[in-house]
Amino acid sequence: MLTKLENKLHSEIPMTKLIQLHAKAIDDKKLITTAPLEININDKGTGFAGSLSTIVTISAWSACFLKVEELGYKNSMIAIIKSDTAYRAPVRKNIYCETILPSHEQLEVVKEKLELKGSASLKIKSLIIEDEKTCVEFEGIYVIKV
Amino acid sequence: MLTKLENKLHSEIPMTKLIQLHAKAIDDKKLITTAPLEININDKGTGFAGSLSTIVTISAWSACFLKVEELGYKNSMIAIIKSDTAYRAPVRKNIYCETILPSHEQLEVVKEKLELKGSASLKIKSLIIEDEKTCVEFEGIYVIKV
Repeated sequence: MLTKLENKLHSEIPMTKLIQLHAKAIDDKKLITTAPLEININDKGTGFAGSLSTIVTISAWSACFLKVEELGYKNSMIAIIKSDTAYRAPVRKNIYCETILPSHEQLEVVKEKLELKGSASLKIKSLIIEDEKTCVEFEGIYVIKV
Repeated sequence: MLTKLENKLHSEIPMTKLIQLHAKAIDDKKLITTAPLEININDKGTGFAGSLSTIVTISAWSACFLKVEELGYKNSMIAIIKSDTAYRAPVRKNIYCETILPSHEQLEVVKEKLELKGSASLKIKSLIIEDEKTCVEFEGIYVIKV
């Protein structure tokens, strides 16, 4: 599933390939994505805010995409409409991102709305973590149309 | 000034070169930056949210950087600490970003704080505009240390 996701991102969204985004792991609770610091570095030798923002934004999108696919919708349109990001500490190593997957309860609501109205929204949180410290905290709202 | 800025960004922050960010124009009120849609496209054939986010984030940083340099600080450290972004409409053409430069009054406060404490902050707004419509609205808070 993750190889398919990564191939989709790299082939359809060139920037995800340029920043070497990697879909590393997934379990019931979270999706893990990574990217090397080297290509995503800034003038201070730490993770570039633009890269960090890109990684959380596309990782949260990916969490939506995978879960909406699991609901049986193969051709949904998912787009971010709003995000808040806090940059709490510089990132000094390769970038490690944890995206909290929507809960069973959230997905039940989404499923119902998609069936009734053909659209729904999801609020997704992504964190960039280093040495157990949250460096970047992101929350995005994604609209889903089927 | 803009060629120097663009060279600095492209040489120190590889991603700004990858997305072909261009510092196009500046006047008293705003900084204009652009990037081609082609490399910054998504699966829907419109501007990728990660690229759009990167462009507003680094453009607002650049506005801070240029204005802090004008105050006489050549080796400041400027970093984003927080941002809010609203994605209002898809971007279908090459990306055009307007960043509102800090006012004379804002810069007077920054100057005073940098002299007194060695640090200050600036709230900067960047917009991605297409056919006179605001597609993306961003506000970031940047901390400056000298």
